[in-house]
Amino acid sequence: MVDILHKVGIEKSSANAAYKALTTRDGLSAWWANGTTGDSDKVGGVIKFRFGDRGGFDMKVLEVQQERRVAWQVIDGPAEWIGTTISFDLRQEGDWTIIYFKHQGWKEPVDFMHHCSTKWAVFLLSLKSLLETGKGAPYPDDLKLDSWE
Amino acid sequence: MVDILHKVGIEKSSANAAYKALTTRDGLSAWWANGTTGDSDKVGGVIKFRFGDRGGFDMKVLEVQQERRVAWQVIDGPAEWIGTTISFDLRQEGDWTIIYFKHQGWKEPVDFMHHCSTKWAVFLLSLKSLLETGKGAPYPDDLKLDSWE
Repeated sequence: MVDILHKVGIEKSSANAAYKALTTRDGLSAWWANGTTGDSDKVGGVIKFRFGDRGGFDMKVLEVQQERRVAWQVIDGPAEWIGTTISFDLRQEGDWTIIYFKHQGWKEPVDFMHHCSTKWAVFLLSLKSLLETGKGAPYPDDLKLDSWE
Repeated sequence: MVDILHKVGIEKSSANAAYKALTTRDGLSAWWANGTTGDSDKVGGVIKFRFGDRGGFDMKVLEVQQERRVAWQVIDGPAEWIGTTISFDLRQEGDWTIIYFKHQGWKEPVDFMHHCSTKWAVFLLSLKSLLETGKGAPYPDDLKLDSWE
C-alpha cells in the first residue's frame, strides 16, 4: 500500500476558510476543477469533478468536520483511483492554517501515481493561492505537467 | 516503507539539459539550493546543499548515467533523511523530457514527510521553470510552505 502525502501552510487565512474551500462547489471550483457539481457539504453526498476530455472523478463524502477534517472516497474515475480515499486535516498554528493531505489506498506505485502526486501538489498550491490572494488556478487554468494534459 | 514519488514533464527542453541541471553545481544551485558545493558529477562524490539557518543535506552520488538517471544517498542532514535515497529517471517523449522522481527509504510517514513531499514538488516545478524559461526559484527564493521556513 502506498500513499500520496502533502502538507501545505496557508498564511493569514483560517481553518474555516479552508473548510469552505473544501466543502462548497464554489470553493472546489475555484482551486481544483472549474464547474464542480454535486453535494459537497454532507456525508454521503457525491461530488463530480470534471476535467474536460480527460474525464474526471466522482467522490462520495465520507467525513465533514467543521474547520477540522474533510474526507472523500472515489466511486468513479480512473481504475487506479476507484476505492481510494482522499482526506484533508486542518490545523490552526498561530497565523497559519496547515493542511495535511492524504490520498490513500493505491494498490501499486504506478507511473500514474507519480503524476498524481505532483499534480495534487499543484492543486494544493492553487488552494493556498486562493486562500491567500483570492485567486486559485483550477482546471482548465492549472499548470500542465504532461504532454497529454 | 513509504516513498515520495513525483513526475514532471518539461516542454521543449532535453534530457541532456535536465541531466546537466542535476549533475552540475551551477545547475543544482539554479533550481534547488543556491550556493550548492561539492562533487556532483561523479559516483562517490559528495554534494552539500544548504538552506541557511534551516541546515541542509549532504548527498553521496550513487549513479550518474548521462541523459538517463541520477541517484544520491543522504549521508548527513535531518535524522529522517539519513540513509534515504533520491533518484531522477529521465525519459524523452517527443518534445517533452519526463522526470520520474523518487525519495525512498523513509521509515515512517511522519509529519515531516508530508512537508517534504510538497516541497519536492515545489523544487521540481522550479527545475521545470529553469529548463523551460531559464529561471528557477531555488532557495532562498523558493515558495514557502510553512511558518518555520
